[in-house]
Amino acid sequence: MKWYSTVEELSTAEVGLATGGRGRRPAGSGTREAIVAAARRQFGEVGYRRASLRTIATEAGVDPRLVLHFFGSKQELFASVVELPFDPEVAFDDLLAAGSQGVGRRVAEFILAVLDSPEGRRTVTGLIRAAASEEEAAATIRELVARRMLLPLASRVGRDRPELRAGLVASQIVGLAMARHVVGLTPLATASHAELVAALAPVFDHYLTGDLDPTDPGR
Amino acid sequence: MKWYSTVEELSTAEVGLATGGRGRRPAGSGTREAIVAAARRQFGEVGYRRASLRTIATEAGVDPRLVLHFFGSKQELFASVVELPFDPEVAFDDLLAAGSQGVGRRVAEFILAVLDSPEGRRTVTGLIRAAASEEEAAATIRELVARRMLLPLASRVGRDRPELRAGLVASQIVGLAMARHVVGLTPLATASHAELVAALAPVFDHYLTGDLDPTDPGR
Repeated sequence: MKWYSTVEELSTAEVGLATGGRGRRPAGSGTREAIVAAARRQFGEVGYRRASLRTIATEAGVDPRLVLHFFGSKQELFASVVELPFDPEVAFDDLLAAGSQGVGRRVAEFILAVLDSPEGRRTVTGLIRAAASEEEAAATIRELVARRMLLPLASRVGRDRPELRAGLVASQIVGLAMARHVVGLTPLATASHAELVAALAPVFDHYLTGDLDPTDPGR
Repeated sequence: MKWYSTVEELSTAEVGLATGGRGRRPAGSGTREAIVAAARRQFGEVGYRRASLRTIATEAGVDPRLVLHFFGSKQELFASVVELPFDPEVAFDDLLAAGSQGVGRRVAEFILAVLDSPEGRRTVTGLIRAAASEEEAAATIRELVARRMLLPLASRVGRDRPELRAGLVASQIVGLAMARHVVGLTPLATASHAELVAALAPVFDHYLTGDLDPTDPGR
């Protein structure tokens, strides 16, 4: 599981604070990373619409024109920073390495671990806030989810309708994150990992490996 | 299943357009309903944050002060208009009348019918947009979901942890609505009712009637 640039970004931001205060940073080493870190915090905290290139530039200690120079537009900056807090290829390899037996429980444990890490929760809630508020952010997220989550999973599960299966898993993850972390709906907001894993494991098993054929006469 | 005031509101709005154009409506019969209809459209289309009392008043053909007179504040107006597009007490009575056998399929069919009606979809996507963007809207929605969905369901299912079960069902519904109607994620956005019912029925069965005990040694 790879955590994109987290450590590098944090240390860059800390160095900026320690040495430069609110002063501006020259273009060059660490600048792009500082902008990405500031943008990720802004998008996660205030959402896509309310995040401004000016505020992001100020927080990163750079000239706002540098943000446009590096990223072109707010939408492109957004697409650059909403990396998933894990590498799906690596993650799904691990989750499916032992075969499909028990995969629902492993997916549930993995997702809950991501959502309960500060970085993972911030990324996922930021994505949800942005997708709900803004059509151009939603388009970016469709791309991200389709390319980075659906395709890797689709290529490994080995059953029919892999895109539908991955979409169903994604929908339950989004709904859980929304209820538990965005809206704070009890008792989902306060349920333990063990309770949620017990509840979700059979669901992910069904979505990933179960019979989804609506014409099956045995249903 | 009761559709709150839809017909009355529509006819009120049409009468307003036909007879008054953009002119203002006097306080009195139909005024409150016209404000509710305009507010529901605004919250559903632009979200809680961007909806303004002034725009709602203009669309309803009333003085903005009348909106405050009737509802007190934007948050109270929001709480008044985000009625679920069905009466949960009646709906859950119907869904559980035949016992818990097959309840997952009946819930799935019912929810998909709600989400595929223009009124139901507008209400649910409006709720999601508002909950994602605004803490005070999220608080209103917590109340709405807890009181109007969780409690009626909790009182009828008859298994352990009814609030957790209802929360899990709500999380999957929210995630589905988000993927299918807000973000437009294929293939969930284009899947047929039959496909989604086949996928969701066993999940709702599990959430409502299955074993959720994390300490069960048989798991």
